[in-house]
Amino acid sequence: MKYKDSGVNIDRANRAKAAIAAHVKSTWGREVLSKTGAFGGLFAQSGSYKEPVLVSSIDGVGTKVMIATMVGRFDTVGRDLVNHCVNDILVQGAEPLFFLDYLASAELDAERASAIVEGIAAACRENNCALIGGETAEMPGVYHGEDFDLAGCIVGVVEKSRIIDGSGIAPGDAVLALPSTGLHTNGYSLARHVFFELLELGVGDRVPELGCTVGEELLKVHASYLSPVRKLMESIAINGLAHVTGGGLLDNLPRILPGSCNARVEKGSWPVPPVFGFLAEKGDVDEAEMFRVFNMGLGMVLVVAASDRDKVAACAPDARVIGEIVKGDGKVTLV
Amino acid sequence: MKYKDSGVNIDRANRAKAAIAAHVKSTWGREVLSKTGAFGGLFAQSGSYKEPVLVSSIDGVGTKVMIATMVGRFDTVGRDLVNHCVNDILVQGAEPLFFLDYLASAELDAERASAIVEGIAAACRENNCALIGGETAEMPGVYHGEDFDLAGCIVGVVEKSRIIDGSGIAPGDAVLALPSTGLHTNGYSLARHVFFELLELGVGDRVPELGCTVGEELLKVHASYLSPVRKLMESIAINGLAHVTGGGLLDNLPRILPGSCNARVEKGSWPVPPVFGFLAEKGDVDEAEMFRVFNMGLGMVLVVAASDRDKVAACAPDARVIGEIVKGDGKVTLV
Repeated sequence: MKYKDSGVNIDRANRAKAAIAAHVKSTWGREVLSKTGAFGGLFAQSGSYKEPVLVSSIDGVGTKVMIATMVGRFDTVGRDLVNHCVNDILVQGAEPLFFLDYLASAELDAERASAIVEGIAAACRENNCALIGGETAEMPGVYHGEDFDLAGCIVGVVEKSRIIDGSGIAPGDAVLALPSTGLHTNGYSLARHVFFELLELGVGDRVPELGCTVGEELLKVHASYLSPVRKLMESIAINGLAHVTGGGLLDNLPRILPGSCNARVEKGSWPVPPVFGFLAEKGDVDEAEMFRVFNMGLGMVLVVAASDRDKVAACAPDARVIGEIVKGDGKVTLV
Repeated sequence: MKYKDSGVNIDRANRAKAAIAAHVKSTWGREVLSKTGAFGGLFAQSGSYKEPVLVSSIDGVGTKVMIATMVGRFDTVGRDLVNHCVNDILVQGAEPLFFLDYLASAELDAERASAIVEGIAAACRENNCALIGGETAEMPGVYHGEDFDLAGCIVGVVEKSRIIDGSGIAPGDAVLALPSTGLHTNGYSLARHVFFELLELGVGDRVPELGCTVGEELLKVHASYLSPVRKLMESIAINGLAHVTGGGLLDNLPRILPGSCNARVEKGSWPVPPVFGFLAEKGDVDEAEMFRVFNMGLGMVLVVAASDRDKVAACAPDARVIGEIVKGDGKVTLV
């Protein structure tokens, strides 16, 4: 008996790893000291930080991986993964250093793995981040058929004195937001239920209200906010940043609010992309639930001094003022 | 419709996260600047390195997660995950700094998640590693029933001048190995096939040849070699280290061999734990295949100057000389 009889083929895994090496290397600058195939990735830090603090986050893309399989397109979930992680450390002021990915399935599909890593590598290049490691796991019995999971870990760095943690947020501050591109990577179980079970649509079906197919809408790439936020950080002090992910605005904005402040957010102050109204109506989901599950068009929330509001508009033209900080007890109130 | 109708319950997820916070915090020293619940983990580096190089690796525990489910014991896979990753960066001379875990299932099982994180945190403390982040993903549709996956990412550091990369390996060097505790985290698809399909055993069945039950054998914790290897590094120069994981000795030792050297390994020079002979016999697996799939009792391979052989024995009494480096072309020869 050979190991491949029980569902694992090490030779084929080795061939696929060779195929993706070119994507991986396209992300490497001179900080990367490792060769592909080494046990761990080696990253030499530059010395430009006085008190460097490493900031790290691990995440997946949820059941958006199932949409990728349904559509047969795999590069976008790779981009989603990187951009999501970049935003998660950006909210503390960190710039990306390096990234590692974990791809698990019943059996390694070399073409699929290559497309996923192509997307990961492209997003890494766009975010100045080196892809220094990865694992492709074959786990028959845990994964079935074409199912797969995709997770990634990012490490970035911030100067200790420039960590953004929300502690400087005070009543009177302005609350602004940068737009999301769509669902990003949250709420897919609910969205799948509405599109595929309630409405019995397929990914190729065009939805007039959305101006595109179901698959196109659901694979829209999670935005990276690195570029506009870093530009802002050069000109103003940002008091707080919240990445709107699982749990939506109502769970994520409180993560950075001091216990003595509320964020008063005005509904109607930003354009809600059509997909959210469509899901609320067709799925009969009430508004409070919509705000807990979806980003509702708000990808990244920024809290700045009211006097800096116009500077934000100059640096990030698509930022909208959505509310203000008032006295309170660490909550978000929607008005 | 509420989101939990489609299989995701954010409130319950939040409760489970609170329950595991105590395990997480038990791993934190003063380098950890973050609070639980922050978007990214914050780790302040100490200044004791002249040219620090970060070393990072991401990995899972393979289908050993299925054994955990069958036995109903979840702390050991948490330990496996951390120890595996610690070894993967140790082979380049790095000591651990911090760790992040990714746990995915159809629905979050709070008790199971807590047991897994308890094991992760225990191993993190043993390896001087802070658990600064984690993600618990609920992905109905990708995962089914009690299935789950577990991955983790480690970041460590090594002084640039002390990176171990195998380049110093030369003919005449001694090849030694530290013993594995059992299968570690590789070859589980084949082992499951033999135990559960061919032999139709259950995890509670006692196997006289193994002196324990199937479940006990298959959940033996992946060893961490941090302690003996770091002790060795204080007294001698290690020319090369290879962690024997997927692909076994035959795929992993070549990863550190210079192209002009072979490793000549003598079968019979170390005790092979009974589980490997049992699997070979009952599964009718030939020897070459056994050496590609399993660690065969060799957890960590060390290459040192022949003159340092006795010092290894003094620092690590369970290390065995298993062969030597000879002129060649980057391969392992079993004799």
